[in-house]
Amino acid sequence: MTFETITHTLPAWLSEEGPDSIIVLSSRARLARNIEGFLFAHRADDKTLNHIVREVLDAAEAAGFDSSNYFSTDDLDDLKKNVLMERHLISPALAKHDGSHGVLVRESEKASIMVNEEDHIRLQALCSGLDTGQVMETARDIEDLLSHELTFSQSKNYGYLTACPTNMGTGLRVSVLIHLPALVLTKEIQRVVRSAGQLGMAVRGYRGEGSDVVGNLFQISNQKSFGRTESEIVSGLDIVVRQIIDYEKKAAGVLMKEAGNQVYDKVWRSVGILKTARVLSTHEFMNLASAVRLGRYLGILKQPEIHQLNELLIITQPGHLQERSGDRFDSSERDRMRADLIRERFVDVSV
Amino acid sequence: MTFETITHTLPAWLSEEGPDSIIVLSSRARLARNIEGFLFAHRADDKTLNHIVREVLDAAEAAGFDSSNYFSTDDLDDLKKNVLMERHLISPALAKHDGSHGVLVRESEKASIMVNEEDHIRLQALCSGLDTGQVMETARDIEDLLSHELTFSQSKNYGYLTACPTNMGTGLRVSVLIHLPALVLTKEIQRVVRSAGQLGMAVRGYRGEGSDVVGNLFQISNQKSFGRTESEIVSGLDIVVRQIIDYEKKAAGVLMKEAGNQVYDKVWRSVGILKTARVLSTHEFMNLASAVRLGRYLGILKQPEIHQLNELLIITQPGHLQERSGDRFDSSERDRMRADLIRERFVDVSV
Repeated sequence: MTFETITHTLPAWLSEEGPDSIIVLSSRARLARNIEGFLFAHRADDKTLNHIVREVLDAAEAAGFDSSNYFSTDDLDDLKKNVLMERHLISPALAKHDGSHGVLVRESEKASIMVNEEDHIRLQALCSGLDTGQVMETARDIEDLLSHELTFSQSKNYGYLTACPTNMGTGLRVSVLIHLPALVLTKEIQRVVRSAGQLGMAVRGYRGEGSDVVGNLFQISNQKSFGRTESEIVSGLDIVVRQIIDYEKKAAGVLMKEAGNQVYDKVWRSVGILKTARVLSTHEFMNLASAVRLGRYLGILKQPEIHQLNELLIITQPGHLQERSGDRFDSSERDRMRADLIRERFVDVSV
Repeated sequence: MTFETITHTLPAWLSEEGPDSIIVLSSRARLARNIEGFLFAHRADDKTLNHIVREVLDAAEAAGFDSSNYFSTDDLDDLKKNVLMERHLISPALAKHDGSHGVLVRESEKASIMVNEEDHIRLQALCSGLDTGQVMETARDIEDLLSHELTFSQSKNYGYLTACPTNMGTGLRVSVLIHLPALVLTKEIQRVVRSAGQLGMAVRGYRGEGSDVVGNLFQISNQKSFGRTESEIVSGLDIVVRQIIDYEKKAAGVLMKEAGNQVYDKVWRSVGILKTARVLSTHEFMNLASAVRLGRYLGILKQPEIHQLNELLIITQPGHLQERSGDRFDSSERDRMRADLIRERFVDVSV
């Protein structure tokens, strides 16, 4: 797998195949692990970090990864790092590093391992739609195979040890990427976010921790990784997410009943603008795409396919646009390229 | 001619046939006259007003009008008055009256006579595009024929006498309805308005005196009707308007050079929204239509025809929408009907 393969394909976890994938774009399980006998990554010297990379790659080969699909931050310029961030394969924290840090990616991008981010190993599994059970199983299987080759730092009292105490215990974070336009439009979202918080869930924007809410997309994840088993964490999130889906569906019903014309108007205008605009920022695109997604959910629109919207969500990001065109452009030029690309994809969507 | 004939046809003065009609929608000449021996309308009793109506209708028959095309405010409900106002056939001042007030309309609506508005006679001639000479000639011809039958109040020193001194002398106001989007977008419009003022011209919004600027449409007219001959007034306005057209064209050139992408974007989005919106206020429609008109002027768009835009300007107004549907609706229902009508007319405009 080359870098280009990654850039030019839709990640499988956005394929619109999973359950409830019109509301839940994707599910994700992430396990944090550190290898016994090595300092945590932020304390380790280059030689140690390098050693860790080799250990992880060897173990990952045994777990079915192809170590030629390892992308080291050493070999990645800022643009390529951006592309990997936009695909949720590396974190902003990892992108800041040079040297012995990187990510190992499985074909289809449904699983990947960040090496020497905050922890030695940040293993993630992703899938389309709401299927936290599946991503948990995939992550556990990979972790199991890795553990045949590596000894992970753990304590009897605290479970797995991590560089930051918030991740210790199971080292698990399960999350979903969910689209909640009706709750935003009916202004009920704040109440839902508060309730989710009380139930131990963190609700964040599209790009995770500290990011703004854009396009009515939210990441919901467990706040604590300790004190409960993996299964309890997964089913805890699952229950909350299913409840939120239920609220969203009810809010959509209320919206159609009380402001049906305005909803039709918003949905159709968004299609109109996406089919005609010559300049589009990421932010505006995400908001318009949100209205189109809502229109598909409500049956107002028959096109485009949800996976087409998901793909645009990825490929219209600044890094992807530049990588696609093979050149660097300023933001206003990118806004033009973005609009061109979107118009091209919306050409068969009739108004 | 019935009221329905009026409501369901495009006024000939918006037919896009005249010179420069992509920038100047229409030209208008208005003459104010009062009949000697009668009190001014605001001082006259009903009997006198009625007498004046009969005198004017008799004289107008001789001037080629068909007095069966006289619409008395007595026979007009509020909705019908609105329709006539929206077609620029009666003024808000006339619409306030009941009793012996009204308007006599010539087929095609290129000429009309308001009776007992501020003055006994307010004669107007309209045409498509910039042709102040033509409307002046039409107005003068009609006035000439009327003067064979009626004696107009005049004094040697002041010329024709009018109820308000601002109209005395020639009783003439010449005006054009002009579209100046580039001057608005480049923020040069204030300077142009000021200069026009210094040259004795009044610049007003679409609906004339006291109205807001909407859709980048302006009415430019002479401020003074005395101290100069009719021809001087007409050519004075003509020179200023041609200068403003020149400024507008230059501003459009600058706009395309300095912000071409933004202009393309604005124009195309407007088409996209007009083709898809389900709710449209008059105000928003006029602004979107302005961008489309600019797009036609700049050659960005090949459709719609300018006369189609002109027609929509008239028939999407609240009174026209209600008259069309034969029923009364609240403003949100009208916004929906307006959007439906516009989508229907934009169906063949490709994006």
